[in-house]
Amino acid sequence: MKLHHIGIGVNSLAEARPVFEKLLGKPPDSEEVVEEQKVRVAMFQVGESRLELLEATSEDSPLARSLAKRGQGLHHVAVAVEDLAGTLRKLESAGVRLIDREPRRGAGNQQVAFLHPASTAGVLIELVEED
Amino acid sequence: MKLHHIGIGVNSLAEARPVFEKLLGKPPDSEEVVEEQKVRVAMFQVGESRLELLEATSEDSPLARSLAKRGQGLHHVAVAVEDLAGTLRKLESAGVRLIDREPRRGAGNQQVAFLHPASTAGVLIELVEED
Repeated sequence: MKLHHIGIGVNSLAEARPVFEKLLGKPPDSEEVVEEQKVRVAMFQVGESRLELLEATSEDSPLARSLAKRGQGLHHVAVAVEDLAGTLRKLESAGVRLIDREPRRGAGNQQVAFLHPASTAGVLIELVEED
Repeated sequence: MKLHHIGIGVNSLAEARPVFEKLLGKPPDSEEVVEEQKVRVAMFQVGESRLELLEATSEDSPLARSLAKRGQGLHHVAVAVEDLAGTLRKLESAGVRLIDREPRRGAGNQQVAFLHPASTAGVLIELVEED
């Protein structure tokens, strides 16, 4: 098990990226638009995990609504799991509220699912299937 | 470089811990009170990083003020660095606003310093010195 990534919502990638470049000592390892989620992502690999800066590409992006409501900052944390469907069933039967009851396709073509923050101390948790 | 830990502020460790135990498949690896910061910490090792659930032990804890203002959820992210004092000087000269201009003693007797969220897209970032 490992932390797959931390997602940080930012108002402006152009403004936020230089600070994280100074902090992490390098430019982003990749930058891409994830159309399904209407976000532009600048990704920094940090050890076995990633730090992702997320900028909304549209006002109806879920991220845009979150930024409007809560401002920029830490948005979600993603944990890598081996068997995503099995993990979801196990968590649901334990009473954890799910946003996605089935795995769906996320960034990088990986299978992902989100848990509802109401069950997890206000933290939006993403599960990412990795072999 | 690696992500050292993610700090999650919770209203009640007793309520939050069981969910994270189910998610991570184990009990916390440690649980301790950090007197200087007036928090009780339940720490789960996740790969090379840690996930820390933080509960305030006093109403005048900085964490208690944060919970009252913003509710529970993701609180800060900590990055491990090799030369903390040098990193602080470098970031300050690059215009990054610091909370701690000098390293101070944190949990586990490590040298730590916090950056001000105003410079880092609203994210409270802790730097932890590790060899």
